[in-house]
Amino acid sequence: MKEKAVFYHAGCPVCIAAEQQVARALDPQRFEVEIVHLGQEKARITEAEAAGVRSVPALVIGGAAFHINFGASLSALK
Amino acid sequence: MKEKAVFYHAGCPVCIAAEQQVARALDPQRFEVEIVHLGQEKARITEAEAAGVRSVPALVIGGAAFHINFGASLSALK
Repeated sequence: MKEKAVFYHAGCPVCIAAEQQVARALDPQRFEVEIVHLGQEKARITEAEAAGVRSVPALVIGGAAFHINFGASLSALK
Repeated sequence: MKEKAVFYHAGCPVCIAAEQQVARALDPQRFEVEIVHLGQEKARITEAEAAGVRSVPALVIGGAAFHINFGASLSALK
């Protein structure tokens, strides 16, 4: 069974670069990557926060949050 | 031919987590990932800086630098 990874973003240029270069570079044999646009899915901000996400773009994988460069803080998306 | 990706780190706990969870999660069919410990290979700090790296851990892929969380600034490694 594939491990789930979630890439949270907000449509910003920094986010798009990270999605294209990092999130989509993950091994599709091992990971199922879900892309979540927190600007459009505000209901999932709580879920992202609970996973340790403080800013976007961020990748949650293996139970840990990895902030990739900096686009916007989560508080700015609420 | 595989695309080259370089993961720069300095052995810090934040670096090791990013290496294990992100750098090693890249698709081995598409990417050849080189792991560079800048604390041990100080001669390569210049190369990292030229690629846009300002702190470690960072992944350089597709010509762009992606800083993953924050372990240490490059200036602290010199």
